[in-house]
Amino acid sequence: MTYGGFAKTYVCKDKYALHMPAGLDLAAAAPLLCAGITVYSPLRHWQAGPGKTVGILGIGGLGHVAIKIAKAMGAEVVVYTTSQAKMMDAKRLGADAAVHSSDTAQMQQFAGKVDLLIDTVSAKHDINLYLNQLAIDGALVLVGLPPEALEVGAFNVVKGRRSFAGSNIGGIGETQEMLDFCAKHKITADIELINADEVNEAFERLAKGDVKYRFVVDMKTLS
Amino acid sequence: MTYGGFAKTYVCKDKYALHMPAGLDLAAAAPLLCAGITVYSPLRHWQAGPGKTVGILGIGGLGHVAIKIAKAMGAEVVVYTTSQAKMMDAKRLGADAAVHSSDTAQMQQFAGKVDLLIDTVSAKHDINLYLNQLAIDGALVLVGLPPEALEVGAFNVVKGRRSFAGSNIGGIGETQEMLDFCAKHKITADIELINADEVNEAFERLAKGDVKYRFVVDMKTLS
Repeated sequence: MTYGGFAKTYVCKDKYALHMPAGLDLAAAAPLLCAGITVYSPLRHWQAGPGKTVGILGIGGLGHVAIKIAKAMGAEVVVYTTSQAKMMDAKRLGADAAVHSSDTAQMQQFAGKVDLLIDTVSAKHDINLYLNQLAIDGALVLVGLPPEALEVGAFNVVKGRRSFAGSNIGGIGETQEMLDFCAKHKITADIELINADEVNEAFERLAKGDVKYRFVVDMKTLS
Repeated sequence: MTYGGFAKTYVCKDKYALHMPAGLDLAAAAPLLCAGITVYSPLRHWQAGPGKTVGILGIGGLGHVAIKIAKAMGAEVVVYTTSQAKMMDAKRLGADAAVHSSDTAQMQQFAGKVDLLIDTVSAKHDINLYLNQLAIDGALVLVGLPPEALEVGAFNVVKGRRSFAGSNIGGIGETQEMLDFCAKHKITADIELINADEVNEAFERLAKGDVKYRFVVDMKTLS
């Protein structure tokens, strides 16, 4: 019998173990090991930092951590959402600007100005809107996995030598680097800590998108 | 009255003039100023060279020059085509390998191995087939302009941090660099030189794809 993530003890090779830096709350740091590294890796690879404008599409488990990390890297952070409530939250999380994606005038404000746009949306959506936010040599990097193919208009990549790219989590070395970075900048996920017997209710809320922004199960309540 | 490309004299600012290096046949060098720079620019930007595998999708006006330039840059060149006749031509033009795109076994041979793939196709086509030819961090760069949107499966970019990018001709500085490069490596386009009174016939053949690989009008036959 194996219990996966619900096991109480684990055996693993030392080279697959990570060091959790002191000062990070264990529960709030837990999502960094998936959502955190998934957004940290492309932000590093495409060199988010001072002088760069970084867009974050979607504010959920991945997006809210991406805002914090991109801001800590020194980038100007613009958040794209279709939720009025989340536009307020974007600012609280540290974004410099929040854009309502269906507001053409707001979209126009950053058209051609975004160097790197992290797309965390896992449902079908029109990425051409966001490709047009990119500056010359800009990249839109998908970290979500929409089940349906996404349509790309040729001119939206040919103009400005733009890229539609993807990125898939990160390796152990980069994950350790991310944890150290988050500890230094006091970054964790916004979580709701629940007891093991609350998982069914949490699952129902998750299906409705009603979580800010990750549920974490307190494993000591399991037995 | 303006005559555009059919004028006999031109006035232009010196910074928009290019120097045609000695040793390049004028007629065969003419297409370099469009097809040549359009493929040279992404080959340079994505650093085609020794140790890199470069794919060329489509053998036409752009593709046949791309093969010559990529090979002269020192890359291993793989050509993708659906025409048996053009597979022979790919080798003659200098390609190291020619792959029939609809032959699964041939496609498998380079799956995950291509660092940069220049896509010269201007009609709708399935780019997912070619995204899967890319190595980690590989880029498929569109230089054609298919009128319809192209569908991209999320996993085909997320896996291996691949990019679907575009590129649009090049500036004057890079065009001069391309001409000098082509002169040094004795590269010109394969052309059919026609008289001005043959343009209608040429146009009909062009519509059928029956040209190897660019028609050039001999301007001295115009009057």
